[in-house]
Amino acid sequence: MPDNAPRHRRGIATVCLSGTIEDKLLAAAEAGFDGVEIFENDLLATSQTPEQLRDRCRDLGLRIDLYQPFRDFEAAPPPRLAANLRRAEHKFDLMERLGVDTVLVCSSVAPDTVDDDDLAAEQLHALAERAAKRGIRIAYEALAWGRFVNTYSHSWDIVARADHPALGLCLDSFHILSRASDPAGIADIPGEKLFFLQLADAPSLRMDPLQWSRHHRVFPGQGNFDLKRFLGYVLDAGYDGPLSLEVFNDVYRQADPRCTAVDAMRSLVALEESVGVPLPAPPRLTGHAFTELTVDEPTQARLADTLTALGFTLTGHHRESPVELWEQNAIRVLVNRGSSSGGGAGISSLAVESSDPVASARRAEALLAPVHTPDAAMPAVTAPDGSRIVFCGPGEAWRDRFRPSSEASRAEGGLTHVDHIALTQPFDHFDEAALFLHSVLGLDTEDNTEYAAPFGLVRARALSDPGHHVRIALSVALIRRGEEWSPGVPAPQHIAFATDDIFTVATTLRTAGAPPLPIPDNYYDDLDARLAPLRLADLREHHTLYDRDNDGEFLHLYTPVLGDRVFFEVCQRIGGYLGYGTANTPIRMAAHRQQRLAARSAAA
Amino acid sequence: MPDNAPRHRRGIATVCLSGTIEDKLLAAAEAGFDGVEIFENDLLATSQTPEQLRDRCRDLGLRIDLYQPFRDFEAAPPPRLAANLRRAEHKFDLMERLGVDTVLVCSSVAPDTVDDDDLAAEQLHALAERAAKRGIRIAYEALAWGRFVNTYSHSWDIVARADHPALGLCLDSFHILSRASDPAGIADIPGEKLFFLQLADAPSLRMDPLQWSRHHRVFPGQGNFDLKRFLGYVLDAGYDGPLSLEVFNDVYRQADPRCTAVDAMRSLVALEESVGVPLPAPPRLTGHAFTELTVDEPTQARLADTLTALGFTLTGHHRESPVELWEQNAIRVLVNRGSSSGGGAGISSLAVESSDPVASARRAEALLAPVHTPDAAMPAVTAPDGSRIVFCGPGEAWRDRFRPSSEASRAEGGLTHVDHIALTQPFDHFDEAALFLHSVLGLDTEDNTEYAAPFGLVRARALSDPGHHVRIALSVALIRRGEEWSPGVPAPQHIAFATDDIFTVATTLRTAGAPPLPIPDNYYDDLDARLAPLRLADLREHHTLYDRDNDGEFLHLYTPVLGDRVFFEVCQRIGGYLGYGTANTPIRMAAHRQQRLAARSAAA
Repeated sequence: MPDNAPRHRRGIATVCLSGTIEDKLLAAAEAGFDGVEIFENDLLATSQTPEQLRDRCRDLGLRIDLYQPFRDFEAAPPPRLAANLRRAEHKFDLMERLGVDTVLVCSSVAPDTVDDDDLAAEQLHALAERAAKRGIRIAYEALAWGRFVNTYSHSWDIVARADHPALGLCLDSFHILSRASDPAGIADIPGEKLFFLQLADAPSLRMDPLQWSRHHRVFPGQGNFDLKRFLGYVLDAGYDGPLSLEVFNDVYRQADPRCTAVDAMRSLVALEESVGVPLPAPPRLTGHAFTELTVDEPTQARLADTLTALGFTLTGHHRESPVELWEQNAIRVLVNRGSSSGGGAGISSLAVESSDPVASARRAEALLAPVHTPDAAMPAVTAPDGSRIVFCGPGEAWRDRFRPSSEASRAEGGLTHVDHIALTQPFDHFDEAALFLHSVLGLDTEDNTEYAAPFGLVRARALSDPGHHVRIALSVALIRRGEEWSPGVPAPQHIAFATDDIFTVATTLRTAGAPPLPIPDNYYDDLDARLAPLRLADLREHHTLYDRDNDGEFLHLYTPVLGDRVFFEVCQRIGGYLGYGTANTPIRMAAHRQQRLAARSAAA
Repeated sequence: MPDNAPRHRRGIATVCLSGTIEDKLLAAAEAGFDGVEIFENDLLATSQTPEQLRDRCRDLGLRIDLYQPFRDFEAAPPPRLAANLRRAEHKFDLMERLGVDTVLVCSSVAPDTVDDDDLAAEQLHALAERAAKRGIRIAYEALAWGRFVNTYSHSWDIVARADHPALGLCLDSFHILSRASDPAGIADIPGEKLFFLQLADAPSLRMDPLQWSRHHRVFPGQGNFDLKRFLGYVLDAGYDGPLSLEVFNDVYRQADPRCTAVDAMRSLVALEESVGVPLPAPPRLTGHAFTELTVDEPTQARLADTLTALGFTLTGHHRESPVELWEQNAIRVLVNRGSSSGGGAGISSLAVESSDPVASARRAEALLAPVHTPDAAMPAVTAPDGSRIVFCGPGEAWRDRFRPSSEASRAEGGLTHVDHIALTQPFDHFDEAALFLHSVLGLDTEDNTEYAAPFGLVRARALSDPGHHVRIALSVALIRRGEEWSPGVPAPQHIAFATDDIFTVATTLRTAGAPPLPIPDNYYDDLDARLAPLRLADLREHHTLYDRDNDGEFLHLYTPVLGDRVFFEVCQRIGGYLGYGTANTPIRMAAHRQQRLAARSAAA
């Protein structure tokens, strides 16, 4: 797809979305899709007639690009051909009523399928002949787990052998890339024989391909497939049909389809960019401009005490809103005392320094992010978790909004800058959030990691700009928690501040009467057995956690949770360590739980 | 384990349970376990010293049977041996403080492990030598994904070769049965070399063994492993240590540990029974005595109308409580107008005819079911979902509690008996419920099935007595639903009534002004294409769903949902069909949703 080429139509299969077909069509249209694949089960469950659905799609501006799937047709034992053709004619009737001209035929999985390419080609030819009389095209697709046909090259052999103008291929990135087939050969297939393209990404998982496909597909950019390369070959072949998403995903099957459809569209726009469709490039990010906490009344005093103990000083007051500015070296924390949404305190805004805030906003807008520009010089977008991301220029223009405090100048304590911001994500929006930050902000995405926390498994994923100026660590419970068993479960957000001397910071905290979160002795005994760090006694004394990899070391400590929603981390990176000490998170969580239970029983 | 032999001690690994170690120990003790395996991460995260934990376990009546796991020890490159022994000595120190004498050593997974059994034996001998000086034993276990050692026979070769009295085996049913190793060889291992036994079941899944093991283990009787045969060989070998459960399970990791521990204990008691430990045998079940619905005020009239339309008559009133008895042939529905727990109506009690209710209750009690005997002749137990299961004798003694209605005698309509009861389970309790019904009632368990419902995936599992007199169909959402996107999601319970002539029932319903739930025409068009049933026009006219398998046919229709919690199904089995028409459930759910949205908008 050369620069400025007219873009391909964009489609989505109804199976990607939750709800009834009525919900799905509306969500797809509102997200701006041009067309839909109608998944058969969605049609069967509605009381709308095919004609009513056809009209509804037309009214919504959606073309029905594909009816799917038709199964177990080719290479059937010959006595079954008549029944299979009867079944197909029923579906052709339906397609005429729906006004859709292409049907997906998946390669057979039936146990009695015959291993005979000539028979497969002959039967598909017969099907195509009948389809052609109705103006219908057959898009034949090799399932990764097809009985005999499970590679695109094999499906192309059969289509070429059948040689009928109404018979072509459907290519599905999952079926090809999950088998690690080389997609390069796609470029050699005549473009007019590529009838349809289904796009899906997936995380690298070692499991049965069928289960992997049916439960764990994700939208492009959320998994590990090289879809840029794949799509490149498809476009090189001359494919000119829609780019259509087909994602079976357990979470999306039960999430709000309106959010999922926007997430899906964003993934397509970002994928198109990777193959040359122009989009405003992501400006360079050079750091965290400020981070805003929204605080309720009871938490305000504790937060101020904690910031003071950490070495921050109150350097300004917002000229219009009840917002305080606290500073230390290159760190700016805004404390918004105005609105409290329950839970004490939370990270409400995250401001990054962009080399071009206006371009950042233009890119965000092109990627379907809700953009707010009350101040054109400082545009903001709302992230999937509801927090706001603000783009600030390098000049600190935002500072004009604050009246400097007379009594204090910016502190020069032991904390140098924001190392990372850690955001617990709402259950339904984890993959969406990672794609949002990756595409909108241009951050690189690490792979998912999982760990066992005291109250259930947690999935984590970090993102960073190439220069590590802006790091964001996302996490989510692997299973959505219920109400019955969550005794003070800690799922707060936090800001991690960097230091070059964590033990001095710890000493300062203790002197200020705000010692770090206590860490159990048992942890240090194990650390000694496991890694035998040089300064074990200091780590133990200062309640500092430790991790090491081949490139360096990571030392980190925590404050107690303030309210129910926020705490701080202080960390020191030594050498080239690029992680987040995730292995220590369960220890931190158990310690926070103990702190909160103690605070609760002290309050009672 | 011969009849009346002293039973083995029962243990559970802390990793089976959610929470901090304090929560876990309490839950294990309350469920009656004799001992625990302490999983290292649970210990590291607590601020209690090992001595405090030791004392806590003693006070709770728990022995610490095992400390686990110690990893990547054997067959290390020789220069690493010293560091590995240092690490081990640290753990031995800890074990002494904890008062535990056995440590689990898993077979190495380190990439640089040496493929040399002599080296493995030599290093394990060195470890055992040091352990013996402390009175500690090494239980060596072959992980299913061990680098070189991944079968129990291989681990036994190495233990035999090392030949040290402080070195023996740990056998874990998962690692052995997940690889489909034949456990028969276990009987030939000297019993005194079997230091420890870990028990886990698992559903048949085609996936990477490590992921399968870490996420999907279940308690014995909840999966597909033949643990009776496995345990038989272990006992034949002369093993006399504890039977200890080690289950890594995503759901249990976040569920209430008190429930999980009881579920775990129940699984062990049932497994012991299978190898000969006596338990009161499950009496024969001959049918559903009655099913009680609890109804709120606004739903009462609709329920009475629906029962009347279905051909039921009101035949009695409870002498003491506001409970009505409705009857038709062998079906008894109790309508409890007394207490409403919100949601309109729900199945509150399920009474089965037992050939010996007192023995049923004794069995239930032995299996840790909460037993209630306000009336000794009619004992009841509370199921994991909170509903009550009542055991009635064959003589219909329960009927004495009802004053017969003067106006009506028992109806002889088209419904003959209860075909099955369908219960939507609370998310955390699905596997627990299946095991409960299997063990307490003696029902046979079918495999789990999964299907895509409009608002997310659903898992279903049916149970039945051998004679199909009592059938219970359980279902649960595969992902716990959130609040954000659940627009009138139907998750109600239902009773399915059997008939020999479903079309006549449908006609009667329509005549009575209570037609069956409308089913979309699209469904019938597909049914024609797919199965071409003989009486398609009748099915369509009567809103009757259809399924077929090799053994027979299944016709079924539904009433609308009454209130938010209950509806009825009418079904006709033809031939040997044993299923529940599960493939049609998404169609039914979408139709119920439409009905409820229409009812809601009519009310608004």
